[in-house]
Amino acid sequence: MLLDRINSPDDLKKLSVNELKQLADELRTFIVDVVTKTGGHLASSLGVVELTLALLKVFSPPEDEIVWDVGHQAYPYKILTGRKDKFPTLRQYKGISGFPSIKESVYDAFGAGHSSISISAALGIKVAKRLKGEDGKVVAVIGDGALTAGEAYEGLNNAGQLGEDLIVILNDNRMSISPNIGAMANYLIKVTTDEWLRKAKGHFEYVSKKIFGERVYKKFKRFEDLIVKGLFPPGMLFEELGFRYIGPVDGHNLDTLIPVLENVSKMKGPTLVHVITKKGKGYKPAEENPEKFHGVSGKKKTVLVEKKIPKWTSIFSEVLIELAEKEENIVAITAAMPTGTGLDKFREKFPERYFDVGIAEQHAVTFAAGLAKKGLKPVVAIYSTFLQRAYDQIIHDVALQELPVVFAIDRGGIVGEDGPTHHGVFDLSYMRIVPNVVVSAPKDENELRNLLYTAIKSDLPFAIRYPRGAAVGVDIEREFKEIPIGTWEILKKGGEILIIATGWEVYQVLEAEKLLKETGIEPTIVNARFIKPIDEVMLTELAKGHKIIVTVEENTVKGGLGSAVNEFLASWYDGRIFNIGVPDMFIEHGEQSLLREKLGLTGKELAGRILKICNNFNLLSDLR
Amino acid sequence: MLLDRINSPDDLKKLSVNELKQLADELRTFIVDVVTKTGGHLASSLGVVELTLALLKVFSPPEDEIVWDVGHQAYPYKILTGRKDKFPTLRQYKGISGFPSIKESVYDAFGAGHSSISISAALGIKVAKRLKGEDGKVVAVIGDGALTAGEAYEGLNNAGQLGEDLIVILNDNRMSISPNIGAMANYLIKVTTDEWLRKAKGHFEYVSKKIFGERVYKKFKRFEDLIVKGLFPPGMLFEELGFRYIGPVDGHNLDTLIPVLENVSKMKGPTLVHVITKKGKGYKPAEENPEKFHGVSGKKKTVLVEKKIPKWTSIFSEVLIELAEKEENIVAITAAMPTGTGLDKFREKFPERYFDVGIAEQHAVTFAAGLAKKGLKPVVAIYSTFLQRAYDQIIHDVALQELPVVFAIDRGGIVGEDGPTHHGVFDLSYMRIVPNVVVSAPKDENELRNLLYTAIKSDLPFAIRYPRGAAVGVDIEREFKEIPIGTWEILKKGGEILIIATGWEVYQVLEAEKLLKETGIEPTIVNARFIKPIDEVMLTELAKGHKIIVTVEENTVKGGLGSAVNEFLASWYDGRIFNIGVPDMFIEHGEQSLLREKLGLTGKELAGRILKICNNFNLLSDLR
Repeated sequence: MLLDRINSPDDLKKLSVNELKQLADELRTFIVDVVTKTGGHLASSLGVVELTLALLKVFSPPEDEIVWDVGHQAYPYKILTGRKDKFPTLRQYKGISGFPSIKESVYDAFGAGHSSISISAALGIKVAKRLKGEDGKVVAVIGDGALTAGEAYEGLNNAGQLGEDLIVILNDNRMSISPNIGAMANYLIKVTTDEWLRKAKGHFEYVSKKIFGERVYKKFKRFEDLIVKGLFPPGMLFEELGFRYIGPVDGHNLDTLIPVLENVSKMKGPTLVHVITKKGKGYKPAEENPEKFHGVSGKKKTVLVEKKIPKWTSIFSEVLIELAEKEENIVAITAAMPTGTGLDKFREKFPERYFDVGIAEQHAVTFAAGLAKKGLKPVVAIYSTFLQRAYDQIIHDVALQELPVVFAIDRGGIVGEDGPTHHGVFDLSYMRIVPNVVVSAPKDENELRNLLYTAIKSDLPFAIRYPRGAAVGVDIEREFKEIPIGTWEILKKGGEILIIATGWEVYQVLEAEKLLKETGIEPTIVNARFIKPIDEVMLTELAKGHKIIVTVEENTVKGGLGSAVNEFLASWYDGRIFNIGVPDMFIEHGEQSLLREKLGLTGKELAGRILKICNNFNLLSDLR
Repeated sequence: MLLDRINSPDDLKKLSVNELKQLADELRTFIVDVVTKTGGHLASSLGVVELTLALLKVFSPPEDEIVWDVGHQAYPYKILTGRKDKFPTLRQYKGISGFPSIKESVYDAFGAGHSSISISAALGIKVAKRLKGEDGKVVAVIGDGALTAGEAYEGLNNAGQLGEDLIVILNDNRMSISPNIGAMANYLIKVTTDEWLRKAKGHFEYVSKKIFGERVYKKFKRFEDLIVKGLFPPGMLFEELGFRYIGPVDGHNLDTLIPVLENVSKMKGPTLVHVITKKGKGYKPAEENPEKFHGVSGKKKTVLVEKKIPKWTSIFSEVLIELAEKEENIVAITAAMPTGTGLDKFREKFPERYFDVGIAEQHAVTFAAGLAKKGLKPVVAIYSTFLQRAYDQIIHDVALQELPVVFAIDRGGIVGEDGPTHHGVFDLSYMRIVPNVVVSAPKDENELRNLLYTAIKSDLPFAIRYPRGAAVGVDIEREFKEIPIGTWEILKKGGEILIIATGWEVYQVLEAEKLLKETGIEPTIVNARFIKPIDEVMLTELAKGHKIIVTVEENTVKGGLGSAVNEFLASWYDGRIFNIGVPDMFIEHGEQSLLREKLGLTGKELAGRILKICNNFNLLSDLR
């Protein structure tokens, strides 16, 4: 095995092109073997095996710096830059990250996870190197999908102006997670197929005939190919933005890829190399269904959990379709995540009312505001962590104008193996700050159904936040009930202690309650299905009868449900309030259930924490 | 006066082109007269007088919908759509807004204030009209400056794909607030000058000679202009993105503008009309210095306040230069606001270390993260409200990687006449949620100096937030002092009540204290110069000795300093906490000092509120 001998990029430099081809095969086998066990982003990484080898053959990190966009395609890079032995710990607790991480390796020039930042980061790195008189090339590797996001364009626009020696590799596989969307995607397809040639020829014919007439045009005709190819090189769009365009290049052919990159490495100014790759390359199941194999689950999980209980996403998807059948004003918007958000099902039913806007969360939200302004009922389904991209648009375009956009915030809370870039633990806080917005989180499937029903009826900006993974597993009640906005629900009446929980944590608290009962503690339990507005009437009433209040949320302890309760009670409540949530730090990656346990957010852990609070409180009471 | 007769767009439709030209003159005079009194965005509005007249001649709002980007150029539109009489109340409390507002008029199809949203919003409106079977055209008017922002590109990309009948008017005046930046700006200049022709000819010559040889090329030469203009129409970049490009058109010539728009109004699919205008047109001082006349102050203010006491922005600008003279790793980044942020002075001194990235806050922050990764000390100066655009980048690219980017958050708090789209009242809350970030606010000039000094030394992500307008007016202490991070400062030791204030509010509380003294109340006053981390040691100590705590901040009451204090004390404090801040609603426009007074945030108002708290508290104590 050649791979056994590669412990750093230097080892790779010595290999011949033929040996690199062999190494490519070995890498693919190794990646498929490991990732089908651990779970992870398979298809993207398989697509860039040769590209990674070529980059490491031509460039020399860490002196040269390679910034991977999104970063789920960086597995081959990780393996080749000293992390081969750790690779089987991929995405596991305390194992290596599924994304580039500057804390993990000196070879990772910049961290990633969210898309479309690589050009901006690489430009910053390049400018800093120049100012500090440091040698070394800087390369950003960005997918065609990531190119639909505004920040990528902002980066190109600035780089094209500054004229730094920046190399952008456009890794064009015609996909983000799903097939790509947007005019830029069409443009790239045109560039890489004969369509540009056909169109250019048509244009040439038209112009020539107009100027010289039919007869002279016929004389030109045999040169047409040459002329047209000369006049209209592909990639003019990038050239207009100040980049030198090189390509398209076959991203799986090392014989051409290496010399092209060698040439590019000597060029001055911003250069864009258009590399064509195939997602899932070399692994038949992934080549045939790259969307499915974008991310694969590890072996254990698939069997244990995901079969029996439907996922929150599926419940959302189902109920949205159910509601849309009755209310024709409902339209749905995704930012390049039809499968992840469950909107693919909606697309099948209502293709006319479905909009995939590409990786473009900002546009998604303003676009939805425009739809809402005209009386439609847009439902924007975006993962919690990606919705951060549209924060200004939520404030400025939706909330300020009080437009009834429904935010279906998927992947709220701890997501697991994707780690700190993907945990959705800030949303309850950042949404609660915004005036005019209703913020809610369902405790179970039926509440998700009824909250969506309520949101659609409400005519208000309305956020519904639910977690990744399997829902609770309750029986579905088909009949919809409108939930009065801002009302909470008492699930259990008890004694001295009041537990207020929201979303996923509600059933955890019910779980904790069983354990607490054994110690003689019988809490009152409230389901805070609305984080904003809160149920001030109920809270006032209950606070009077309880000496301890504990708030529980799978969200940062700063600024969320706990803060809402504190703010309301601070000026008059006599008891003690304890806020339980995700601590104020970035949470590493690891299995979702494990992380929840480590963070003390599961039923059993909560029982222990609440018991401790009760014990301490008795102590405190004595001290008073 | 023709203007007297125009009470709605219908009145304008009847006018001849010559009458419209006269109306243009009258409009300019009226706008200059009013705006030099009220203050407002002068230059942009003067630049679009003819464009607005042409739009209203050809299109018929509200059936046709016109979405103005940013919206500070919408004064002529406001005047012509029924708001002429109210125009002298522009930007004043309870007067008409300086931006389009759907609550103000049925003619305002979508609100604005922040840039680059118009294409997205207009596309949403157009799609909704189609789905609802509603007639009417939809037009987005966007400046070339706004085109540097990612969301504009996201909008173009989606519109180019969907193929809706959307009209985008590119109002190209070569400026945002300052001259424009970026490759797109260069492209637009090329398109509108002979440069594209020159380049295209060079290209044509090269290709022809290569294919046909020198001799044949010479035969072609006389047709060169015709051929090249035929083959390379301007605006190909937009054509590649799926738009039909029309232009460039003189935006001040009604004789051509009206027929062009009439043609365009009949076209199918997405169309971009490139209109060339001059910012400040028709008003000499503004034409000559459009940057200065972007926004003008009303007559009163200029004399009263702004002369004597330097602005927060100037203090920041000065100290940054002072620090940069000693620390060569300091670099500064603005998103198209060199003057507004005071970085224009930095640019003069250190052109190599200054970066204007265009209206591109997302890129600005990731770019800064890249610079910081390489050991530079980037200071990103962005207005509070615009920093919302980069929220995800703050979390994902800076905080998670613990990169030492300094955020100079200007215009924090109530900004005044620009109103709800521009008040910077969410920043303390949205920044405090983010792990690893230091969040601070100076009470006066010296503290701003020392906080910036501390930030640069800290090697941490560090936000410093300061308000719009004049600072406090204290004498400047030239010597820098490092402020231990997270420490607060006791300004006055007093009795039962503890007032914790941050930033601008600190001196207001000191003001309030004088008034309170008369009633016998002597509070302890603390300057919470850090909102994160808070001074837990001091707070613990002081809380024990005080029965009432009042927090004061010019920030939403949700999630900011007040919440931080609540969160820390909720589990053990026996007294009462009152959070004073900006209420949880969007605050209208009006003079800054008036709004602060109305919101109860000035010294005098605070005294009253605190007095009331003390009185009520005695009552509460009795009830206990």
